[in-house]
Amino acid sequence: MTDASFSPELLEEVTSRVLVGMGAPEDLADTVARSLVLSNLVGHDSHGIIRLVEYSGWVREGKIIPDARPSLAWQKEATALVDGGWGWGQSAAALATETVIVGARELGTATVVLSRTNHVGRLGEYVDLISQAGMMGISFCNTGGMVVAPHGGVKKVLGTNPFAWATPGVNGHNLVLDFSTAVVAAGKVVLAAMSGEEIEPGALIDKDGNPSTKAADLEAGGALLAFGGHKGSGLSVLIDMAAGMLSGNLPAAISQSGYGNGTVLIALDISRYVGLDIFASIAEQFATVMHGATPPNGSPVLLPGELEAMTKSDRKEKGITITAGVQQNIVDVAISYGVAIPEFNRA
Amino acid sequence: MTDASFSPELLEEVTSRVLVGMGAPEDLADTVARSLVLSNLVGHDSHGIIRLVEYSGWVREGKIIPDARPSLAWQKEATALVDGGWGWGQSAAALATETVIVGARELGTATVVLSRTNHVGRLGEYVDLISQAGMMGISFCNTGGMVVAPHGGVKKVLGTNPFAWATPGVNGHNLVLDFSTAVVAAGKVVLAAMSGEEIEPGALIDKDGNPSTKAADLEAGGALLAFGGHKGSGLSVLIDMAAGMLSGNLPAAISQSGYGNGTVLIALDISRYVGLDIFASIAEQFATVMHGATPPNGSPVLLPGELEAMTKSDRKEKGITITAGVQQNIVDVAISYGVAIPEFNRA
Repeated sequence: MTDASFSPELLEEVTSRVLVGMGAPEDLADTVARSLVLSNLVGHDSHGIIRLVEYSGWVREGKIIPDARPSLAWQKEATALVDGGWGWGQSAAALATETVIVGARELGTATVVLSRTNHVGRLGEYVDLISQAGMMGISFCNTGGMVVAPHGGVKKVLGTNPFAWATPGVNGHNLVLDFSTAVVAAGKVVLAAMSGEEIEPGALIDKDGNPSTKAADLEAGGALLAFGGHKGSGLSVLIDMAAGMLSGNLPAAISQSGYGNGTVLIALDISRYVGLDIFASIAEQFATVMHGATPPNGSPVLLPGELEAMTKSDRKEKGITITAGVQQNIVDVAISYGVAIPEFNRA
Repeated sequence: MTDASFSPELLEEVTSRVLVGMGAPEDLADTVARSLVLSNLVGHDSHGIIRLVEYSGWVREGKIIPDARPSLAWQKEATALVDGGWGWGQSAAALATETVIVGARELGTATVVLSRTNHVGRLGEYVDLISQAGMMGISFCNTGGMVVAPHGGVKKVLGTNPFAWATPGVNGHNLVLDFSTAVVAAGKVVLAAMSGEEIEPGALIDKDGNPSTKAADLEAGGALLAFGGHKGSGLSVLIDMAAGMLSGNLPAAISQSGYGNGTVLIALDISRYVGLDIFASIAEQFATVMHGATPPNGSPVLLPGELEAMTKSDRKEKGITITAGVQQNIVDVAISYGVAIPEFNRA
């Protein structure tokens, strides 16, 4: 195999086929496949179809129940709980997103919490959907594994606990902020350790709490750092307690389960406060001012979500490049479920 | 005058007297005074009674209408708008906090936005109150003045746009996170510039976008930086657009008014998802784990709000030290309204 470029539609079809092989009903497989390929499409390949490898492991370990359907456990006024039933996190998140939008449309604002939910993928996907409905969306998620040290600490006791926030935007994309509260993603450090690579300074400490750029130090008793000092660390702490407790997933240090995404979605109907046409018009002026802050001859200042929107447009046109290695990994997983991917073999 | 220590009760009485001198009705003056002294009490003297000097300027300029009362402009299901009437921000925030708690108690979650509102003080105060009611509180505020450059930019186009988040906690204090999305507060830099002091590295750029520690560079066409690179900058952008548009205060770069706090308060009733006794019990275990991440012989890892709780307990016992300079500034303001502060003169 060689690196090759594929259309998103083809990748969705292939991904869905592998997921059905793992035991997912077709509709759930389609939802998960669309979500994974969307991550590739917007440029976040680490959250793309390569995740099939990890998901396969979780299916075999019984952590993902591939035919479990998410359900609305309860809904009361502006609050609801989705029970993911330990199925595919993306299906649970899709139901929660739909529910929170309907709730906010009716009552102005709503909150939906996801319980017993596996990896939901990029939170940015869900707040973007909320903003496509003319709303402000906020989401945060406590991730199961302990890997980040709190500010001033030396032990890994927090998850990478991502946070996302979106509003409607301009030029065909919403303002979509989506970040890990760790300086770098844990997966990136694990990969770097395998290949003996270095990690950017300021992201990692060794077991004695000294700054390190040696990726292998993470597994050797070190820890990732939270971004932005005590402020980012504080966000991670609040996410771990709030999302961990509301979802029943528990803070990573308490559950010690190493998996599960305790996720919270909040939606607010903007049109109760300001017309969406006025919002869009000011957003356009605002974008012009932000872009105008670019230094002479410097890289352009980008708004949250702007790079993803440009990448999406580019990859929709040119296709998504999947490396030979990733194709091989996915083919290996597929074969283990008796699924063929002739599309990759041909490339 | 010399530096001297005062009880919070005495400082509230003195502060309220000066505010009444400025034209505030007694009940509003008491609310503002309690809020300012609370900032001193928890150790944030920059947000304490020294603000009387700034407020006096705003009253004279007509930006603060001292006898304006906040009102509930509208309330519909889980959303509401408080009209601050350009009176004291703290009074408007008190009404909004009360309203958001009642709303969330009834419907599970609620959002209240503040419009036409002056400086609200510390957002941490309001999310703390929400958590005292057994709820999760989130607040953010777009500040009027352009002073922060977006990530990768060289022009000051964003406010210092603070963000706060709280849940119930342990050991008598809630988990209260409250930060400016600028690395350092603008006021601190202005003060440092006056005395020719340096600012910590990473907080400031000069007019050409080069890193600077010279506080005077801020007024000379430079800009503050957002904390945490593109992540903190992204938070500031979302706050400016979301809070600016929902409140009608407009993003700083659009309104160019230089004042006004477009503020959003969100409350979620935790007890719909988990019993508060279980929440408290896990919070206690969680705190133990966080404290246990402290390096050997290192400064203890603190939870968000913990330093403030310790300072409050200490200052309640020993009193709040007000420097001679701050006393003199406040006495000067008071005299201009015909108000005497014999308590300070005696010190």
